Amino acid sequence: MDIISESNEKGVIERRFDLSVEGETVPGIIWTPEHTAGPVPLVLIGHGGTQHKRVPNVLGLARRFVRHAGYAAVAIDAPGHGERVTDEAAAIQVRRAIERRIAAGPGEDVVEISPEQARQWVERTTRGVQEWKQTIDALEAEEGLVDGRIGYWGLSMGTAIGLPFVASEPRVKAAVLGLAGLSVRPGAAAFEQAARSLTVPVLFVFQWDDQLMSRQSGLDLFDAIGSSDKAMHIHPGGHIDVPLYERDAYEAFFDRTMGG
Amino acid sequence: MDIISESNEKGVIERRFDLSVEGETVPGIIWTPEHTAGPVPLVLIGHGGTQHKRVPNVLGLARRFVRHAGYAAVAIDAPGHGERVTDEAAAIQVRRAIERRIAAGPGEDVVEISPEQARQWVERTTRGVQEWKQTIDALEAEEGLVDGRIGYWGLSMGTAIGLPFVASEPRVKAAVLGLAGLSVRPGAAAFEQAARSLTVPVLFVFQWDDQLMSRQSGLDLFDAIGSSDKAMHIHPGGHIDVPLYERDAYEAFFDRTMGG
Repeated sequence: MDIISESNEKGVIERRFDLSVEGETVPGIIWTPEHTAGPVPLVLIGHGGTQHKRVPNVLGLARRFVRHAGYAAVAIDAPGHGERVTDEAAAIQVRRAIERRIAAGPGEDVVEISPEQARQWVERTTRGVQEWKQTIDALEAEEGLVDGRIGYWGLSMGTAIGLPFVASEPRVKAAVLGLAGLSVRPGAAAFEQAARSLTVPVLFVFQWDDQLMSRQSGLDLFDAIGSSDKAMHIHPGGHIDVPLYERDAYEAFFDRTMGG
Repeated sequence: MDIISESNEKGVIERRFDLSVEGETVPGIIWTPEHTAGPVPLVLIGHGGTQHKRVPNVLGLARRFVRHAGYAAVAIDAPGHGERVTDEAAAIQVRRAIERRIAAGPGEDVVEISPEQARQWVERTTRGVQEWKQTIDALEAEEGLVDGRIGYWGLSMGTAIGLPFVASEPRVKAAVLGLAGLSVRPGAAAFEQAARSLTVPVLFVFQWDDQLMSRQSGLDLFDAIGSSDKAMHIHPGGHIDVPLYERDAYEAFFDRTMGG
């Protein structure tokens, strides 16, 4: 884990790091409280599709976890995202395609994608899971940083990668997931199996008028989640309209399941 | 409003009162902070069927609103409940019938009830709505007690009465409702219309394995609620299994919508 830069914004230390995972450089950011009495709990933040490790939503959430709860927070660029975009034109095309679907209104579960796109999706998920595991390894290797209580927060693509990650990583003790359904993705059978194998507390956030998936697919995913301690929070509006006040719920959830 | 008795339990003043509404005595309790700088917000607590104004759930919630948020809270015995039970044997019969349905497992929406039971249900709702309105009148008439910010909390029968009440009472600014569906009750058309007419923020709580109603009926009710600011919180388990931690969500909801 190579620290690239460090800054301090109103008591929140922000450090840019690079991590080498299977021959690729994974750029990340760790946010920590300026003053701590020792190691602290950690929340991993998985950004959405077309986003990156420091979009306003991720940055706001990270600073909030640090300031309100005294946690550390970490975000990494998912495969093909942020500083890992290799084909800028293709990335813009993907973003525009999603924006068109959101603009088009209430969604269909089945989206035509090519076998090549499906292969990329599965590969990205597999790689993303591996990168999160090695991010934890790296942070745990840092002296006095994190105390072993680890939570995960990630919606949409942050759930596509995060759900199989949490299901396969016993070090993660609680997860906020959402903006995802059972029937919308390549690799659906493995995804559903991962959902059924979950045992940690889960807060599952869903938008009632999501343009990218049906209500039923979201209800089915909530139903499939194996954890006995689970909740589904549904709000009106589309894929990018999760109310800001829901951040209170994320915070209360981690506070209850991980402690402060 | 006649004050019958007063006590002080760790900073929470509890006053038993009687209110006369259309020839019937409605017994109630108001809880207020021992120390206040002036009038405070008020939460009305509507108990569930077979319960009364001082069951542990209501008492715990009231004390919490007072201690954590500095609100006042009030509960009244619904028609035919608590001190208003006139036929003890019949009340026990009703309670046992509900307990049998809860024990029997996942529910059906259509329950065979007699025309007489249906008539009683509608009459109880109509009367219950009227009694809440006059409870507000009485509390507003008390000098320096409440400041005009009024919320309502009530699940199950507390929603059967509370939803049409909130829909018809502009003084109520926010409501926690739940454990109810669209298709389970006599007077369903009027109930649905009241739901559609709601405009205040609503937190709608639902149990995924409710023995007394189907999932679809709950989703349909959430869908029908007219408020743009609404959320549905779903938890696993049966009708009486709403997790205790959901009280954090009630508190956060009123804090956000009414202020402290």
